[in-house]
Amino acid sequence: MKKIVILGSTGSIGTQCLDVLSQWPERFRAVGLSTNRRIDLLTEQAEKYHPEHVALMDPEAVRKAKPMKAGGIKVHEGPEGLKFLATLPSADTVVVATVGAVGLPPTLAAIQQGKNIALANKEVLVMAGELMMREVQRHKANLLPIDSEHSAIMQCLVGGQKSEIRRIIITASGGPFRCKSLEEMERTTVAEALDHPTWNMGPKITIDSATLANKGLEVIECYHLFGVPLEQIEVVVHPQSIVHSMVEFVDGSIIAQLASTDMRLPIQYALSYPERLPSPTEFLDFVQIGKMTFEQPDRKRFPCLELAYEAIRRGGTAPAVLSVANEVAVEAFLKEKIRFMDIPQEIEIALNEHEPIPEPNLEAILGVEAETREKLREKLL
Amino acid sequence: MKKIVILGSTGSIGTQCLDVLSQWPERFRAVGLSTNRRIDLLTEQAEKYHPEHVALMDPEAVRKAKPMKAGGIKVHEGPEGLKFLATLPSADTVVVATVGAVGLPPTLAAIQQGKNIALANKEVLVMAGELMMREVQRHKANLLPIDSEHSAIMQCLVGGQKSEIRRIIITASGGPFRCKSLEEMERTTVAEALDHPTWNMGPKITIDSATLANKGLEVIECYHLFGVPLEQIEVVVHPQSIVHSMVEFVDGSIIAQLASTDMRLPIQYALSYPERLPSPTEFLDFVQIGKMTFEQPDRKRFPCLELAYEAIRRGGTAPAVLSVANEVAVEAFLKEKIRFMDIPQEIEIALNEHEPIPEPNLEAILGVEAETREKLREKLL
Repeated sequence: MKKIVILGSTGSIGTQCLDVLSQWPERFRAVGLSTNRRIDLLTEQAEKYHPEHVALMDPEAVRKAKPMKAGGIKVHEGPEGLKFLATLPSADTVVVATVGAVGLPPTLAAIQQGKNIALANKEVLVMAGELMMREVQRHKANLLPIDSEHSAIMQCLVGGQKSEIRRIIITASGGPFRCKSLEEMERTTVAEALDHPTWNMGPKITIDSATLANKGLEVIECYHLFGVPLEQIEVVVHPQSIVHSMVEFVDGSIIAQLASTDMRLPIQYALSYPERLPSPTEFLDFVQIGKMTFEQPDRKRFPCLELAYEAIRRGGTAPAVLSVANEVAVEAFLKEKIRFMDIPQEIEIALNEHEPIPEPNLEAILGVEAETREKLREKLL
Repeated sequence: MKKIVILGSTGSIGTQCLDVLSQWPERFRAVGLSTNRRIDLLTEQAEKYHPEHVALMDPEAVRKAKPMKAGGIKVHEGPEGLKFLATLPSADTVVVATVGAVGLPPTLAAIQQGKNIALANKEVLVMAGELMMREVQRHKANLLPIDSEHSAIMQCLVGGQKSEIRRIIITASGGPFRCKSLEEMERTTVAEALDHPTWNMGPKITIDSATLANKGLEVIECYHLFGVPLEQIEVVVHPQSIVHSMVEFVDGSIIAQLASTDMRLPIQYALSYPERLPSPTEFLDFVQIGKMTFEQPDRKRFPCLELAYEAIRRGGTAPAVLSVANEVAVEAFLKEKIRFMDIPQEIEIALNEHEPIPEPNLEAILGVEAETREKLREKLL
């Protein structure tokens, strides 16, 4: 029986993670859940999954936690509460399904306890990849990705040694603007940008998919997670989103992972790894699929991709600046304060105005994050 | 330094195998080579690779082996010579690149010595799969496939446990008649049938690819090699021949192996396994590839495929009968004695006229092979 803590159990990944747990009650048990402010949903989850601990970020929410306390559940508060859950001695695997910089301190704490970490919070590796991977090595923790691309890469890598990798090929759906001209993209509306062809996601991630900023962030995550040189990481546009990523080995053999677009699959793999378990995921039917296509991403129309490579080259705190600048710029676009093609431009300006701090610790990273956010919010919002 | 014996070193696979060896002189050394009757090429190979032993099947050829003998090479003759090479105590890996039933006795002998066997000779597993795999288990031998489909499956299987397999999906180019009507196929000429879209191969294999008999034989090999139930083995037509095969696991995840169509890749993988080495194989360029398509094989136009499944169901010596009936029927077609669509019909008749011997030993298999061949040659040639 694996004991699981889910940080961010009320979000999209968190709820799907609980869905996976409910398929395998004899294998997995939720021992800790957390939410930012969705106390009603967390209360429901607590009734169903009986965790020993919950954590709540919002002080407002804590007051509504009385029924859980009455039921014998220990209720923890704020960032310290999240850290408590992340380092729970009884937990085998900590699922980090929080969003944004809030996930960094508990993930680092879990790593330092040598836990298995199933990671969905992109910012953890984007903002603090060097630091996290150094600590993973030091504490022999296991960092297992649960987004579809990095899960695919991990599954492909089982077929060879790291020294045998020639290229990692991350696939991208290409987003809703794959076939649009630069002029069309420049005058795009929020509604158009939110209409994603394949995945059904929140507005921030959907815009990231339209700018290809999401692929840029995935390149950064990939770079840290698999420790390969940057020039060995490529992005190829694959509109059908069936191949979730590929690894090319030195002999010219490519191993690819294919599956339907169901997040429960990478979530379950991260939990059951190295085993595989049956899943409610739909099986692929190649005759129905018919064809799969591949294209080069257009770096001119999607500068966010190249900016991610540039942030890694600059190193230190540069990727953290890229991440937060993208976040604020997307917010400004969603509020119609800036235009779609201003998003990469604002990221570029923020990167250029930043002098990266080399080998930053967590405080330095969070300091740069807060400072960049404040400056950019003032400018754009 | 791995010491390699190549049975059939003067054929297409044999020469490509030596090509791989010449790339890695510090890793692989040819200690034994053999030919049926191409003594001139074997003499050249012996000069270049300095094997300690050679074997010659054709008594005519033996007389021309004097220069090799004078050079200190030990020359062996006939089936016993092949067996001698296959069981050479110094050999780590025996490459079986012979064609037809001649490969069965030396392969069995190598298995019984617990050798690593890199297997290209289809008939070994098609005719004697049950026997060979039983002996592989008993003697803890390693049977490594070197055709592109089974090599792909082996590479995909590294990503999971055998108990976790849901389906093995063997890809087929579809051959030159993929888009032809049944009527067109019925009146096809030998020249049309020999015009294969992707691979450049000998006439027998090209016709097997046009009838999909080759996929039928691969289904039989796959069934024995990976020990999965027949209903878990599927064939899908993929005209671009980029995906060489796939494995679907119980969780819905599919691992696929992709590469350019270069036999040196599966040959080298079988020799270097579990390592991978750089290869002169061309790397894939997905942007240039553009698209990959998938279709259901038409069982009406390609009955050879279904006949292979039927032969496995009948078991025992039935697959051996299928193999030899196909061989003789193809010969008869190439000699314009029968029409293209008579090939599956002759196989079906041969299967129906045969009462399979259950759990046959090598003698029984070879007896059935010789008998079926004689009977069918008399009828068709």
